[in-house]
Amino acid sequence: MATSEASVTRIMLAVNESTIRGYPHASISSRGAFEWTLQKIVRSNAAGFKLLFLHVQVPDEDGFDDMDSIYASPEDFKNMKNRDRARGLHLLEFFVNRCQEIGVACESWIKKGDPKEVICHEVKRIQPDLLVVGSRGLGPFQRVFVGTVSEFCVKHAECPVVTIKRRSDETPQDPVDD
Amino acid sequence: MATSEASVTRIMLAVNESTIRGYPHASISSRGAFEWTLQKIVRSNAAGFKLLFLHVQVPDEDGFDDMDSIYASPEDFKNMKNRDRARGLHLLEFFVNRCQEIGVACESWIKKGDPKEVICHEVKRIQPDLLVVGSRGLGPFQRVFVGTVSEFCVKHAECPVVTIKRRSDETPQDPVDD
Repeated sequence: MATSEASVTRIMLAVNESTIRGYPHASISSRGAFEWTLQKIVRSNAAGFKLLFLHVQVPDEDGFDDMDSIYASPEDFKNMKNRDRARGLHLLEFFVNRCQEIGVACESWIKKGDPKEVICHEVKRIQPDLLVVGSRGLGPFQRVFVGTVSEFCVKHAECPVVTIKRRSDETPQDPVDD
Repeated sequence: MATSEASVTRIMLAVNESTIRGYPHASISSRGAFEWTLQKIVRSNAAGFKLLFLHVQVPDEDGFDDMDSIYASPEDFKNMKNRDRARGLHLLEFFVNRCQEIGVACESWIKKGDPKEVICHEVKRIQPDLLVVGSRGLGPFQRVFVGTVSEFCVKHAECPVVTIKRRSDETPQDPVDD
């Protein structure tokens, strides 16, 4: 059955960088959610799906630690912005390259802000058929302090949401890491 | 790409009867969840998926209202059990027939008990790749009194869960109905 562009299933994936390895590495749970989507949903039917990768960057309060000056000039800000942009693109490259290998259509973009708020806002704007979010699978005690993006999205995103828990054999020493 | 039986994506769907039309009619939200699964996930790739339909019957305290006697003999119990079974099968027939038309493999079975508990128990036993549950999309006020199976499953089922909200244009006059 031929599938026209208008009728492909559009799956949005929220992806972030690893807390352990930083950019350009994707977090363990992002990669898990992506692999799950390919293996369990897209399968061999690449033409039936389009993946939409959203990476939300959290504005970095300590951004100037890396720089030589604590007095920020407009030039400094511009550099920082460009640096963040390059890092984000580098992260998205991993997902986009993988999609190209498989032949599944995709789009990717970067936003700044509070991930959970931005994801729900983008869902409203883009109206995907499904939102896939990875989760570290933290226990109730850890969740109180860390907060989870996935729980917020399940409650508030205006589209079906599926949460893919990180596999237990991939959990880092500190489970809050990812 | 050929897909062997062992590697198909197994999607469990929890389905129930309509509160308005009763057996053999499926609830609006069950049908919506089923149609969503076919249109957005299975698509043209019928060979890649297997659908597992679970129907949980709530033990009916008023079961004897329909009968001529309030004194239940063992025969009465047997009749009631057979009647319930026939009704449940009739409900499942709708889903199974639709799958056969499309050529997607399926299985279906009936259990008795508290739907949310039974669904999570069956997930543990069957280990599907994904659980799809319909939801009436009730507001917070209504939820307090009605309780929602989908919320419980999202929290407790040991597999990825996606909740498909009933379309607003399909909401009955009383949104608690389904």
